[in-house]
Amino acid sequence: MGDKSILLYTFTTPNGYPISILLEELKAVYPGKIDYEVKTLDIRTNAQKEEWFIKINPNGRIPAIVDQARNNFNVFETSAILLYLAQHYDPENKFSFDPTTDPDNYSEMVQWLFFAHGGLGPMQGQAHHFLKYAPEDIPYGKTRYIDETKRLYGVLEIRLKNREWLAGPGRGKYSLADIKAFPWVRIHAHAGIETLDEFPNVKAWIERANAREQTKVGLTIPKL
Amino acid sequence: MGDKSILLYTFTTPNGYPISILLEELKAVYPGKIDYEVKTLDIRTNAQKEEWFIKINPNGRIPAIVDQARNNFNVFETSAILLYLAQHYDPENKFSFDPTTDPDNYSEMVQWLFFAHGGLGPMQGQAHHFLKYAPEDIPYGKTRYIDETKRLYGVLEIRLKNREWLAGPGRGKYSLADIKAFPWVRIHAHAGIETLDEFPNVKAWIERANAREQTKVGLTIPKL
Repeated sequence: MGDKSILLYTFTTPNGYPISILLEELKAVYPGKIDYEVKTLDIRTNAQKEEWFIKINPNGRIPAIVDQARNNFNVFETSAILLYLAQHYDPENKFSFDPTTDPDNYSEMVQWLFFAHGGLGPMQGQAHHFLKYAPEDIPYGKTRYIDETKRLYGVLEIRLKNREWLAGPGRGKYSLADIKAFPWVRIHAHAGIETLDEFPNVKAWIERANAREQTKVGLTIPKL
Repeated sequence: MGDKSILLYTFTTPNGYPISILLEELKAVYPGKIDYEVKTLDIRTNAQKEEWFIKINPNGRIPAIVDQARNNFNVFETSAILLYLAQHYDPENKFSFDPTTDPDNYSEMVQWLFFAHGGLGPMQGQAHHFLKYAPEDIPYGKTRYIDETKRLYGVLEIRLKNREWLAGPGRGKYSLADIKAFPWVRIHAHAGIETLDEFPNVKAWIERANAREQTKVGLTIPKL
């Protein structure tokens, strides 16, 4: 496999970070086996809506990847990219679980991945919208999505009791589920949730993820 | 495997239907190999928030399953349940693609599954909320989510040009991606989109899915 097998189209958002985090983590575990080139797509100028990019991601959103080592295969949707990278570039399942030999842990990871992808991300995203971007002040919208985001943090809080990570036996293993979910929760203040004091297990989980060296690097990509 | 291996906790919603649809389709393909017992959870009375159910689905939502044939393993999140059932109960990949031998088609299916799970479902769900359930009339909320739902239908419209189904080679194969997505789109009128005339490929796709015998049965479950 050549250098820079993966082209990553991304931006500085909680949808983009999971991919750069996983790629940085994989680079450290499998040196020389995977590398990636960052293509910054400035969503403030709607670059992601341009026709050339719609061919890569028909939904016109970041992130997306093109895998130059696998016939320029395109993948869109954060969580689908995570599962793809795990399948093709994490043969030892350092950040996932083998679907065939460890199907129950694999399913638990996938369950929390969908929880984050369909609940946490969309709902916290709406809280951000009504608090920061909506051109009108709509208290009902703010309250609705702040409350739902807190409810979802409460679900994570219970899950993380006596666990370090969302999926895996015992105290769990840092996996795609965490990598997808925590970049949203770490910017809780954007959703009007000033502190995580109500959610001590969630707070400790964020600190644990933030402390990982490769994850820290992933959170700086792309550089603007 | 005993009769009624799967307990399905569900209700008459576009999150619940995909599971009963897939189970009915699987029953027809693999007679005697899978059956399920429907447990109706009336979300109008918040039955899904009761403590016994939180042990099955920590997020307190329908659908969820308990697999009595696999040590009472619990699965929550619609799309995670679909992937679980395909892995364990669809050995011939009639509604999926083999992740190992057919990884690119598998990934395409997973991409459209996450598109539906994180985009279509949550956004159309917000349109339903502002149109039908919100206690205040909030034109901004209605417009925002109707527009986003239409945008997402437009993405499906382009994808379905010259295709019958969302994933698979050629004109595609009826798969988990369709089973997840179309139960939302078929109730477009709840999202303020009176007709699908603007989206002829989407309209034909819905008619195609609705015409399948087992899928029709799945859409009648649970009976209230």
